[in-house]
Amino acid sequence: MKFSKFGQKFTQPTGISQLMDDLGDALKSDQPVNMLGGGNPAKINAVNELFLETYKALGLDNDAGVPNSSAIISMANYSNPQGDAAFIEALVGFFNRHYDWNLTAENIALTNGSQNAFFYLFNLFGGAFSDKSNTDNQTVDKSILLPLTPEYIGYSDVHVEGQHFAAVLPHIDEVTHEGEEGFFKYRVDFEALENLPALKEGRIGAICCSRPTNPTGNVLTDEEMARLAEIAKRYEIPLIIDNAYGMPFPNIIYSDAHLNWDDNTILCFSLSKIGLPGMRTGIIVAAPEVIEAVSAMNAVVNLAPTRFGAAIATPLVADDRIKQLSDDVIKPFYQQQAKTAITLLKKELGDYPLVIHKPEGAIFLWLWFKDLPISTSELYETLKEKGTLIVPSEYFFPGVDVSDYKHAHECIRMSIAADEQTLTDGIAVIGEVVRGLYDEAK
Amino acid sequence: MKFSKFGQKFTQPTGISQLMDDLGDALKSDQPVNMLGGGNPAKINAVNELFLETYKALGLDNDAGVPNSSAIISMANYSNPQGDAAFIEALVGFFNRHYDWNLTAENIALTNGSQNAFFYLFNLFGGAFSDKSNTDNQTVDKSILLPLTPEYIGYSDVHVEGQHFAAVLPHIDEVTHEGEEGFFKYRVDFEALENLPALKEGRIGAICCSRPTNPTGNVLTDEEMARLAEIAKRYEIPLIIDNAYGMPFPNIIYSDAHLNWDDNTILCFSLSKIGLPGMRTGIIVAAPEVIEAVSAMNAVVNLAPTRFGAAIATPLVADDRIKQLSDDVIKPFYQQQAKTAITLLKKELGDYPLVIHKPEGAIFLWLWFKDLPISTSELYETLKEKGTLIVPSEYFFPGVDVSDYKHAHECIRMSIAADEQTLTDGIAVIGEVVRGLYDEAK
Repeated sequence: MKFSKFGQKFTQPTGISQLMDDLGDALKSDQPVNMLGGGNPAKINAVNELFLETYKALGLDNDAGVPNSSAIISMANYSNPQGDAAFIEALVGFFNRHYDWNLTAENIALTNGSQNAFFYLFNLFGGAFSDKSNTDNQTVDKSILLPLTPEYIGYSDVHVEGQHFAAVLPHIDEVTHEGEEGFFKYRVDFEALENLPALKEGRIGAICCSRPTNPTGNVLTDEEMARLAEIAKRYEIPLIIDNAYGMPFPNIIYSDAHLNWDDNTILCFSLSKIGLPGMRTGIIVAAPEVIEAVSAMNAVVNLAPTRFGAAIATPLVADDRIKQLSDDVIKPFYQQQAKTAITLLKKELGDYPLVIHKPEGAIFLWLWFKDLPISTSELYETLKEKGTLIVPSEYFFPGVDVSDYKHAHECIRMSIAADEQTLTDGIAVIGEVVRGLYDEAK
Repeated sequence: MKFSKFGQKFTQPTGISQLMDDLGDALKSDQPVNMLGGGNPAKINAVNELFLETYKALGLDNDAGVPNSSAIISMANYSNPQGDAAFIEALVGFFNRHYDWNLTAENIALTNGSQNAFFYLFNLFGGAFSDKSNTDNQTVDKSILLPLTPEYIGYSDVHVEGQHFAAVLPHIDEVTHEGEEGFFKYRVDFEALENLPALKEGRIGAICCSRPTNPTGNVLTDEEMARLAEIAKRYEIPLIIDNAYGMPFPNIIYSDAHLNWDDNTILCFSLSKIGLPGMRTGIIVAAPEVIEAVSAMNAVVNLAPTRFGAAIATPLVADDRIKQLSDDVIKPFYQQQAKTAITLLKKELGDYPLVIHKPEGAIFLWLWFKDLPISTSELYETLKEKGTLIVPSEYFFPGVDVSDYKHAHECIRMSIAADEQTLTDGIAVIGEVVRGLYDEAK
């Protein structure tokens, strides 16, 4: 069968698709695998117990008869394209209780998960734009500006035609973490950003960052965020913030950071990392014109978003239990996982040139093996043969030609969502392989 | 904010989007509305009871502990981009039990509902194609061929750029229905189809029809389907069949019809019309190369499909209860609704030039008001003012310029999923208004 160019774009084997297949195959494999590669959240008993309790309650509240039970209402009826109205109402109340944003239902749309939101937003603000300044009906090509790479691997392929990213490489600062050496932190290179020709020449459609950053666990500082917001306003383009790991839920964020919103900001939230990834529920908070556009895209691409994640989350958002769960269970869990993983890594590689990105949030550690004799894509293959899966760094630079950028071949993303035994076994394999590589090169 | 051309395409107000807003607003309105306009399936007690029972069972099977209950597994874990593996396995078994298709898991992918499937498939087989026959890297524009319009309104806007449809107008045959006059049936005009320049010149990427047809309730005959399959094979393009209302579930089909599949056929199924529209679960059965492409598009557009519809349906597919429910409850329910609606319509308009498309399936009646003095888009406005919602016909001709096609302005789609009181009240309003229009013109 012949596929269109759109189809060919999506079906061409890429490094990323190969990697995703590997991760998927590993999960299906009979061999034991130390899975430090994926993005699935951890299995936390207190979290699953709350969800199961909520689940059962939705199926039991049928005093008014089966058709009126919450479970049946959410299963047996379409929402409108904007998403489940009761959940949107609960979210409006929740955000207005905790922030001074003065939202209304016109500021919120739901999507089938965060990836779906970014598919919409990056095609809404990147790609071909009509250029009204000339008369020949020509188009201007605009890009999504990633002010700090490395950034999320899943952004790379979302444009319906080509890739439309402009990206800035980071400043790398050596920092301490809880008084210890051996850490670094990425910071936005504002000089490079402000001097980017695409920005100055009107070829940027939006600025976007994840905070905490997937893959690095970096949290852009409030000052960095304020500068980005100012630049976005100056150029009359929105600032998109991917809050999948951020405040107020799942709140996997350990640094002192605040969340702001105004009508030039597009905030994206998700229920995945509080523990509901199978439900595919994303939340967009933005100006009404963006919400209208997202609703229109929902109608065409999906008719309406899925409702069941909304049904489960509504009571937890309405009475703030989602925030308690995040603050009291989810955040401390991952903070402890990060501590455990760092202890294990220091034990395995304390005398070797490993530096770790300061863990400020999210569910990953980002490891930099300085002057590693092989690329981390090759390291990935060696580790895979030994039953340990991580993700090599080169895929986390959308919009950057990394062929001459050594740092992009020296890092890995390692999930810390696994149980302690898997973390211990996986880090032991990483330690053994990496020590061998450095020792051989001596 | 400035939107890309992609964004502008999706956010431009269109007749359809205005209509959808009307239907949505009506549902939110305080005024009583006779809703004969939407596509929500009927509330059938036996159906909802079975779903609620299944729902509760998924939350209770946690002998192995909370994290291993079926509800938590489906909520708390991503599936891979192809979709929930256990549901796909159950579907393979189901289809192979009831048909001789010899499917494997490589023949099935899940999507976030049927609309999502058509967004993928129409962009995969319609739009710009690389033309390898010339050396200047030019592209060929290919269309989706709709062999019989009217067709589903939701197809119209799914192409990421422009519209790419070619359509054939129907033969209209007067027929009887259960021995009564006053009915017609659309048939494929194969002569027009075979002589379509776009088909002969290689500018068709796929053939697609819904069966039963939304909006008309027509069921293309086995002979018509065999001819379409033959033409598709001859031109080496796939035949896509939208089976949302068809066999084997929800099986809202009353004519003698059979379902075939081969690797040049793409069958699309949905859980919506068995009563789970809020779950957004679509099923594609196709050759492995199509399934791979759909999985790749799932990964980019949605990361992975939602799992909860799959979780609810898996036990019902595994033991054929989904088929029993369809055959014994859902199909007879709508057949009775069609009978009731026809009786009411004949009572109201028996002496007027109303003819009804022979009801062979789906959840709509398609009414043709011959020589109505106003267009049905104007009739829609009048009925809306009187609190009764239907959908006028002009939106059901994707790929046809209907400005000079009178028939496209003389029909309406009327849902029969409403309760009897709503049907009675709504049809009384339609009767009163339409009688008045014909009487005035005398």
